Amino acid sequence: MDRVMSGDRPTGPLHLGHYFGTLHNRVLLQRDGAELTVLIADYQVLTDRDAARDLPGHVEGLVLDYLAAGIDPSTTIVAHSALPALNQLLLPFLSLVSVSELERNPTVKDEIAQSRRAVNGVMFTYPAHQAADILFGKSTLVPVGQDQLPHLELTRTIARRFNDRYAPVFPVPEALLSAAPLLLGTDGTKMSKSRGNAIAIGASPDETARLIRGAKTDAERHITYRPDTRPEVSSLVLLAALCLDRDPESVAADVGSGGAAALKNVVVDAVNAYFAPIRARRASYAADRGFVRGILRAGAQRAGAVAEATLAEVRTAMGMAY
Amino acid sequence: MDRVMSGDRPTGPLHLGHYFGTLHNRVLLQRDGAELTVLIADYQVLTDRDAARDLPGHVEGLVLDYLAAGIDPSTTIVAHSALPALNQLLLPFLSLVSVSELERNPTVKDEIAQSRRAVNGVMFTYPAHQAADILFGKSTLVPVGQDQLPHLELTRTIARRFNDRYAPVFPVPEALLSAAPLLLGTDGTKMSKSRGNAIAIGASPDETARLIRGAKTDAERHITYRPDTRPEVSSLVLLAALCLDRDPESVAADVGSGGAAALKNVVVDAVNAYFAPIRARRASYAADRGFVRGILRAGAQRAGAVAEATLAEVRTAMGMAY
Repeated sequence: MDRVMSGDRPTGPLHLGHYFGTLHNRVLLQRDGAELTVLIADYQVLTDRDAARDLPGHVEGLVLDYLAAGIDPSTTIVAHSALPALNQLLLPFLSLVSVSELERNPTVKDEIAQSRRAVNGVMFTYPAHQAADILFGKSTLVPVGQDQLPHLELTRTIARRFNDRYAPVFPVPEALLSAAPLLLGTDGTKMSKSRGNAIAIGASPDETARLIRGAKTDAERHITYRPDTRPEVSSLVLLAALCLDRDPESVAADVGSGGAAALKNVVVDAVNAYFAPIRARRASYAADRGFVRGILRAGAQRAGAVAEATLAEVRTAMGMAY
Repeated sequence: MDRVMSGDRPTGPLHLGHYFGTLHNRVLLQRDGAELTVLIADYQVLTDRDAARDLPGHVEGLVLDYLAAGIDPSTTIVAHSALPALNQLLLPFLSLVSVSELERNPTVKDEIAQSRRAVNGVMFTYPAHQAADILFGKSTLVPVGQDQLPHLELTRTIARRFNDRYAPVFPVPEALLSAAPLLLGTDGTKMSKSRGNAIAIGASPDETARLIRGAKTDAERHITYRPDTRPEVSSLVLLAALCLDRDPESVAADVGSGGAAALKNVVVDAVNAYFAPIRARRASYAADRGFVRGILRAGAQRAGAVAEATLAEVRTAMGMAY
């Protein structure tokens, strides 16, 4: 049985891109019997002043999005700041990587390029901290997008080096590359919380309709599915197709010469119908904050015991069990 | 009452330079009523392959040296690897410093200059980890040598920034500059475990005599105390003076034209007499490994509770108490 580790930074509500990109896959993995842990990487928002302002709100919002999407409420869902033993793993892991390896990580490299040396220490050490997120529970499988492969590669390197130098404590986790196609935001760029072009999972049907009706399309009336040459229209077609569980070509053919307005009607209806039960579930959990907090506390307790057991093994392997 | 934090890396036996440079001062501070914590920085030897080989031996050796020197056995003596809540503080602290601030630390700078970018992540983040060592117990006073002032300055910066950004959790610790003069090793360079020029606190009287008789002196027969122009001879004079609680000038005058051989006899007798009770104490504690381990365990328990309380305050201040 696979132990699957996945997670998110608590920077705001999850959107349809997250849902079809990763959330839905987590639910399917869990239904297939994988042991899923969902880690909320709250220390990784300390580089982001705005996101850090309402952390409890963002963290609880994530839990609601998870439960809404169908993740089992008995799943271990936990903020890594609640797991001292996980965070301690940063020390041995940092000892196994060089400064230049940390700098080579694409995300860190981008940040350094943008802000020179003003990058803070959490951002700089983030690849090693992510290794702690993944390895504390001895995960075997990590669902990732193509852009996250280099991060996972460093985690795999750290696991191998630890095992070689001390004792075989960690499995070397495999990447599960997401097959989910990219959804664009309403402005035609990548759907992203920070760009204001995203439709939140928890959005109301009216808001959903308004956002989709305002989405960018193109001048060609006849609707087709050609992601390479008609990215905006094709992304709308794809969104409807995902919600309707149909193939995008046939959705496009159905709309045909109805044009963008007709396409948008199809998309609005499809999204609102697909997400109706998900949103109803979200609303009912949202009415019970105590339940949400209880999930986080239970997650911290379970994951805490796992992290402590792993840390004990690590300390013994390193000759630090005095 | 001051809360004093001091400590050592477990890289081998402490020597007379440590004793007169810092250990004896810790004992005096404790006798004056300060609340002393002694932290064994075992993660900070992960950059040093040889030292990392017999960590338990080195850690227990440190405890023996502490007890021998007169540190109260009820003192909190603890390895930082035993304190997950302390280690977690590395995360918030790293978020408060930039990569260039870490690089500016003189020790880190030296390491980078020597090994380019092959410096490992533990060395690179060491100034922030040291801040965790000092601040977890809300220390107010840190005995340091001149060369360690820049490290403490970063700890003070981190404390101030945390207090400004979140809530006034940390005192800003003061440096207690050691007045102790530098003892040279038997080869005339700085006394250092790694140079093989040190006399261990726990050395036997015969070994002590052998090492001192082999120490470098100079060609001038008449013994004087002139540290600037006659460093090797003056360091031997100083060592005798420290052991005899006399001023070095009068010790030198007593030897006078007796030459280096006579001086060395005085030094051997003074050192062996001064350290006889210390070495007897060390031997009696060394016979009871269970007692030494018990001290480390009790220290981990007490310091663990302190670290957990501080981390809880930190998490609340940062809005991470879900």
